[in-house]
Amino acid sequence: MHPSLKAPHPENEAILAEAVTGWMFSRDQASQSLGMKIVEAGAGYAKLTMRVRAHMTNGHGICHGGLVFSLADSAFAFACNSRNQKTVAAGCTIDFLAPAQVGDELVAEAVEQSLNGRTGIYDVTVTNQNGKRVALFRGRSQRVQGEVMTEEP
Amino acid sequence: MHPSLKAPHPENEAILAEAVTGWMFSRDQASQSLGMKIVEAGAGYAKLTMRVRAHMTNGHGICHGGLVFSLADSAFAFACNSRNQKTVAAGCTIDFLAPAQVGDELVAEAVEQSLNGRTGIYDVTVTNQNGKRVALFRGRSQRVQGEVMTEEP
Amino acid sequence: MHPSLKAPHPENEAILAEAVTGWMFSRDQASQSLGMKIVEAGAGYAKLTMRVRAHMTNGHGICHGGLVFSLADSAFAFACNSRNQKTVAAGCTIDFLAPAQVGDELVAEAVEQSLNGRTGIYDVTVTNQNGKRVALFRGRSQRVQGEVMTEEP
Amino acid sequence: MHPSLKAPHPENEAILAEAVTGWMFSRDQASQSLGMKIVEAGAGYAKLTMRVRAHMTNGHGICHGGLVFSLADSAFAFACNSRNQKTVAAGCTIDFLAPAQVGDELVAEAVEQSLNGRTGIYDVTVTNQNGKRVALFRGRSQRVQGEVMTEEP
Repeated sequence: MHPSLKAPHPENEAILAEAVTGWMFSRDQASQSLGMKIVEAGAGYAKLTMRVRAHMTNGHGICHGGLVFSLADSAFAFACNSRNQKTVAAGCTIDFLAPAQVGDELVAEAVEQSLNGRTGIYDVTVTNQNGKRVALFRGRSQRVQGEVMTEEP
Repeated sequence: MHPSLKAPHPENEAILAEAVTGWMFSRDQASQSLGMKIVEAGAGYAKLTMRVRAHMTNGHGICHGGLVFSLADSAFAFACNSRNQKTVAAGCTIDFLAPAQVGDELVAEAVEQSLNGRTGIYDVTVTNQNGKRVALFRGRSQRVQGEVMTEEP
Repeated sequence: MHPSLKAPHPENEAILAEAVTGWMFSRDQASQSLGMKIVEAGAGYAKLTMRVRAHMTNGHGICHGGLVFSLADSAFAFACNSRNQKTVAAGCTIDFLAPAQVGDELVAEAVEQSLNGRTGIYDVTVTNQNGKRVALFRGRSQRVQGEVMTEEP
Repeated sequence: MHPSLKAPHPENEAILAEAVTGWMFSRDQASQSLGMKIVEAGAGYAKLTMRVRAHMTNGHGICHGGLVFSLADSAFAFACNSRNQKTVAAGCTIDFLAPAQVGDELVAEAVEQSLNGRTGIYDVTVTNQNGKRVALFRGRSQRVQGEVMTEEP
């Protein structure tokens, strides 16, 4: 086998990650309708932003925890699918550290902690525009059959 | 002390829970904009529904995990605030058992497992219209100062 | 195919579960050295006890959380291996509700919540001799290759 | 107020952390009986080791997950009590990445991620002697009344 085929070149990995993340995001109606934006994508990595708007608040007047979770979960999804191997979330934990307020610009950064066979662990940190940490998220991924980017029917 | 003051009467607890849940839901723009509906409210208990719509799907074409989480988190929030003592989520875990599809009518049922002082544990089961379990959620609540229902400014 | 081959008979499942649990426990030096005892075993089910002894206490003078976890984890392991398909823990969460004291007789009961393909979710409740809940545990299992009971070398 | 009283001096914090950790460990019969050793202690930080011995194995012949958890939990306990404010574990999650074998020298390193009022989040990484990660642990702490080091009765 040609050496270049044995392991992906880091530069190629980065290009693939950007392509897969863009492909997924263009079909991800939930992330789009919540106003998320991709800041950066890489192999096992993703960074997203989302602005908290009034329709995202809960009965206490702060950002609904489910939408903070959604931002972290999208970053997790892009990171664990970044090698174009179709992967889903098996389970996640989130710890809420500080409330997010209307107008806050949240940033979620997902980093791959482990990838053993078909399962991976990803840590996502959600911070606000002042660098204050809003939530810590940890996701367990499960690779399933198939690739992410497929020819459209 | 008059006996009726020592412990809340179950019937009064139920009336209070319905009032608090209604109060919170009427201010919860996130839950409303996701189309959630309250089916039942009680002391330490809540049952909600949400229909999965196209704008809730992720890049794999199934319901975004963050929105399944949001439904469970709202049920958790209503259950842990049901005694009109202001309570927030400290941390949550979710395990995804089956994907939710567009058109599915999801039901989240939150049950209080424990309430010790200011912290509680609530289990939420999310099922679809066929009774298939979509996710298991467990939330840890933290009571903060103040009541939920307050006079409006 | 003969109908009896299509699905395991409940009685046979129970006999198999008891055999597998006994086989595993006889090799489980950790559970034995902590003084655990099997109360009941079934398909996707296990119930164990453990008495808290002085050497199990931590720096605060109460039972070390890791040993409460160990009891729950053993119950989880017996429950998820009860069909003789080798299965390991992928991840677990535990919430501590009340301290366990020296002399307490703890009971851990593991119940299968879900089994989809190779992954399962098991809830374990740890209570003391007065029925007070000490901890809630949730484990995610991952089936690996092979059977539990094998011929000895 | 004298400036030196406003915030603890880092050097004093480190001395206090070492004293508290030593005090707790000397009373922590569970950690001692499992053969744990303290490598380093600091404010919000602890590093421990534990050798996996035969009596720590489970029915699959590998280190019982509860004892890997126990090592991580002890590191978490020392880190969250390091300021001499009595603190207990509210809840923990653990993800198992690789089995630990008899003879392995495990290292657990606990790092404070957050401390808001009475609750904190600590991440613990457990690695073996080859630097391979065995488990990722996250603990939520709850401060209670009182100090750790007290005069003996």
